[in-house]
Amino acid sequence: MIKKIYLAGPDVFLSNAIEIGQKKKDLCKKYGFEGRFPLDNEIDPCCSTPYETGLKISQINEELIRECNLVIANITPFRGPSADIGTIFEIGLAKGSGLQIFAYTNTKILFTERTVRFLGIKSNKDVTGLKDNNGMKIEQFGMTDNLMIDGGIVNNKGMIFSGDVPENEMYTSLVVFEECLKYLQYHLI
Amino acid sequence: MIKKIYLAGPDVFLSNAIEIGQKKKDLCKKYGFEGRFPLDNEIDPCCSTPYETGLKISQINEELIRECNLVIANITPFRGPSADIGTIFEIGLAKGSGLQIFAYTNTKILFTERTVRFLGIKSNKDVTGLKDNNGMKIEQFGMTDNLMIDGGIVNNKGMIFSGDVPENEMYTSLVVFEECLKYLQYHLI
Repeated sequence: MIKKIYLAGPDVFLSNAIEIGQKKKDLCKKYGFEGRFPLDNEIDPCCSTPYETGLKISQINEELIRECNLVIANITPFRGPSADIGTIFEIGLAKGSGLQIFAYTNTKILFTERTVRFLGIKSNKDVTGLKDNNGMKIEQFGMTDNLMIDGGIVNNKGMIFSGDVPENEMYTSLVVFEECLKYLQYHLI
Repeated sequence: MIKKIYLAGPDVFLSNAIEIGQKKKDLCKKYGFEGRFPLDNEIDPCCSTPYETGLKISQINEELIRECNLVIANITPFRGPSADIGTIFEIGLAKGSGLQIFAYTNTKILFTERTVRFLGIKSNKDVTGLKDNNGMKIEQFGMTDNLMIDGGIVNNKGMIFSGDVPENEMYTSLVVFEECLKYLQYHLI
């Protein structure tokens, strides 16, 4: 049976989201999978408030996740040092629902370094490690993102793929995404 | 049977995390619940690399979540316009694992406004709505955070509590947290 892959990521916010989604689905097909993109189930917003539309999109995406066998999540940092929060909710939900999780990010810069750069911190380091200006700890585990993300994926036989892409292709490059598919082609049961 | 509540949030990064965790657990007890704080199961980092320690903490927290009946998540914006990403992974996992989710945030400013302020955007609005400088959409659903968060909670009979607290108590105030507990005292089956 062909494995269904839920394609999580901030790609849905791109102005050409549908086009990118189709490219991702085409690549899934090339490697023997069926890709499901969040926008696959479009809804008609005409009959409800923006708030109700948002709730409905959430419900549809959750149903789409539960119909899949695994997730490939785009965890490229988005509007801050961490991945898109909607994507992260989805991989959490997927793991809780029994799916296997794989992820990719279009930067090789690790989470600690990204956070330090984001906060503009120079030397808030004491014996207990790096702190932000509120005195709150900055994780230093050599991970791609917060430890719950890396741990949630890696402890579950998943993998995180990372690579550097041109700055202006940060949210559109599918090179690392395709590396993930190439790997999965030979490594999924 | 006393309900066990997993206390998710960036509170774990506070320099007095253990003290705050104890205060939250005391408040849970006051309202008839048993609170479980992520740091409850401490691990000995002496015998592994930082990376392996991170993986272990993730595993322990996931086990702690699965032992609970519900989650109260602190989704106060953290290092960017959205909630702490580790917290969001946890509520996703909890929902997938069948737990009910409640959340609180120490600001009443909604997600769209926070994102616009964060990005410093003035007028990137076209007929399809607000965009960031990469041309990527900004959600406008009148929600507390990304629609997967609000939807994931509200569609599951959960609730999000919000209130404004003094700026310097953004990560320590337990006023809104206690409001959530007061509500749950009379509204949980």
